[in-house]
Amino acid sequence: MSDKTSEFSLHPPEAIAQALNQAHRIAVVTHVAPDGDAIGSCLGMVHLLRDMGKDAVPVCQDPVPYAVNWLPGIEDFRTRVPDDVDLVISIDLSSPDRMGTAYDPGTHSSIPLINIDHHVTNTGFGTVNWVEPRAVAACEMVYHLAQAFSYPISPQVATYVLTGLLTDTRGLRTSNVNVRVLRVATHLVELGAPIGKITELTFNRKPLSVIKLWALALQNLHVEPEGIIWTTITDEIRRAAGHEEKNDGGLVSFITSADTVYIGVVFTEEDGRVNVSMRSRPGYDVAQVAFALGGGGHPQAAGATIEGSLEDVQRRVITLLKDSLKQA
Amino acid sequence: MSDKTSEFSLHPPEAIAQALNQAHRIAVVTHVAPDGDAIGSCLGMVHLLRDMGKDAVPVCQDPVPYAVNWLPGIEDFRTRVPDDVDLVISIDLSSPDRMGTAYDPGTHSSIPLINIDHHVTNTGFGTVNWVEPRAVAACEMVYHLAQAFSYPISPQVATYVLTGLLTDTRGLRTSNVNVRVLRVATHLVELGAPIGKITELTFNRKPLSVIKLWALALQNLHVEPEGIIWTTITDEIRRAAGHEEKNDGGLVSFITSADTVYIGVVFTEEDGRVNVSMRSRPGYDVAQVAFALGGGGHPQAAGATIEGSLEDVQRRVITLLKDSLKQA
Repeated sequence: MSDKTSEFSLHPPEAIAQALNQAHRIAVVTHVAPDGDAIGSCLGMVHLLRDMGKDAVPVCQDPVPYAVNWLPGIEDFRTRVPDDVDLVISIDLSSPDRMGTAYDPGTHSSIPLINIDHHVTNTGFGTVNWVEPRAVAACEMVYHLAQAFSYPISPQVATYVLTGLLTDTRGLRTSNVNVRVLRVATHLVELGAPIGKITELTFNRKPLSVIKLWALALQNLHVEPEGIIWTTITDEIRRAAGHEEKNDGGLVSFITSADTVYIGVVFTEEDGRVNVSMRSRPGYDVAQVAFALGGGGHPQAAGATIEGSLEDVQRRVITLLKDSLKQA
Repeated sequence: MSDKTSEFSLHPPEAIAQALNQAHRIAVVTHVAPDGDAIGSCLGMVHLLRDMGKDAVPVCQDPVPYAVNWLPGIEDFRTRVPDDVDLVISIDLSSPDRMGTAYDPGTHSSIPLINIDHHVTNTGFGTVNWVEPRAVAACEMVYHLAQAFSYPISPQVATYVLTGLLTDTRGLRTSNVNVRVLRVATHLVELGAPIGKITELTFNRKPLSVIKLWALALQNLHVEPEGIIWTTITDEIRRAAGHEEKNDGGLVSFITSADTVYIGVVFTEEDGRVNVSMRSRPGYDVAQVAFALGGGGHPQAAGATIEGSLEDVQRRVITLLKDSLKQA
């Protein structure tokens, strides 16, 4: 193919190599409320650049989440793009606002920006854009970028990149995992990524507060005859469990795994509003309801944060979901 | 190496190929209380043999478990080795008693037996033995056997084999997963195993009764200051949840993922006795306590079934575990 993208590799535009060659001091920024892929791709890119002799710094508005807080080098993160960089790379984000306060258009928009992302909704806001929705993770793009331009991948870079690849595919369990992705994962292990350590620390380790949170939240479990399963995390439950992070530790995925349901929902009280986190089994779509509620997401994982009392929000969302199931 | 086993392949003895060539009607038997690897390796071997023109039948004393009950061909299973076979292959089991009532030494011991297994404790009871503890699953041995003897692997055989490889490694998350295993998994996908479908049906799907079981059992959660987390599944809970299978749907692994504990235990009332299922974080050993209780297992996953009241068994096991942690 003319763009050198084969079935088993994805190829970045040559303009990225040119921009990287010319740059000396580079900020790599990822999105607010970062996940494992955001952190992995950001640190992977930073260390790839440092190994090339560049001065590179990782930037993220928000703290590194628990699942990947064992990665080396997370103490390097800054919360704002330094004003003296000569290149910004945004990674794993679809529009500039997703950088939050880390990127100030007034100050930073005169600096060249390389936009590297795998979201189909990317707005193409960079000086150079590489948007590749076929990539299962931003980390997969970091791998292909290094391969395409023959940048050596150290064991540390391989560790960052494999960690993000595994988190965004829930441990190679999402439906987009194919031979290309498996080859990338295998090569990263060959390059020195310790897959056993990564899976142990990222997937087999939870705060005790999550276990307690599940124990309490599962007491609120409801199963609707229409095929909807839902539960609630109140402020009181979060306090009693001692769980401070704004996530459910995978609870919504767990309840949605019930083989008699189509859709699962966790309602979480959050700063006086209600966070609605939805999952669906293959063939069912929760993104439409999320959009209707002013949120967003993918067909099988979507959500919104809504004003209103817990009871009102629950009634409204469950009604919308029942209607959407009737239409499906 | 002289036995042709390289870093990336495991090689069966030539005597297996000779025995398979001579046989016409073959029973492939796996162990009682089968898991995904038992079923996958058994069906994988059967269909490999059928594709070679042999008459082959899968045998298991007990029913196929929920996690892999979606596999095609499970209706072929017999509960006893037919008397008229001219070859028996035992797969994924370390001693003949693990076949239960499927294999009757009085009737069947005159029939040649090929013993294919990856347990280090295998007693070498076959006419021909291939015991390969480096294999992460019996299914991995079926793959290497087919590769070594150039038996074609159909998409259906690849599906069985990848399913067992994934279940025995908890989705490539165990510490023994290495480049060889990843290459095998990748090749099986190349050969037509639908990895997305396998992970969806095997890992992302549970009976609703498991969700309800967890909701009830987690109300009994105890955390000992010594780093032991434990809970209990009573007969009453199992009845209330409607959960008939004798397993906890992964509950013991879930509670043991708490990052402040070393050991997790689930006590389950079972036919008037108490089943003790234990897990440990890397570096801690529950096998010794399981042996002391008359059970068995691996350092990180072991168990026993004990006579006594729930309270007595709990007290005894927790005391033993606290002692073992003091010594560690």
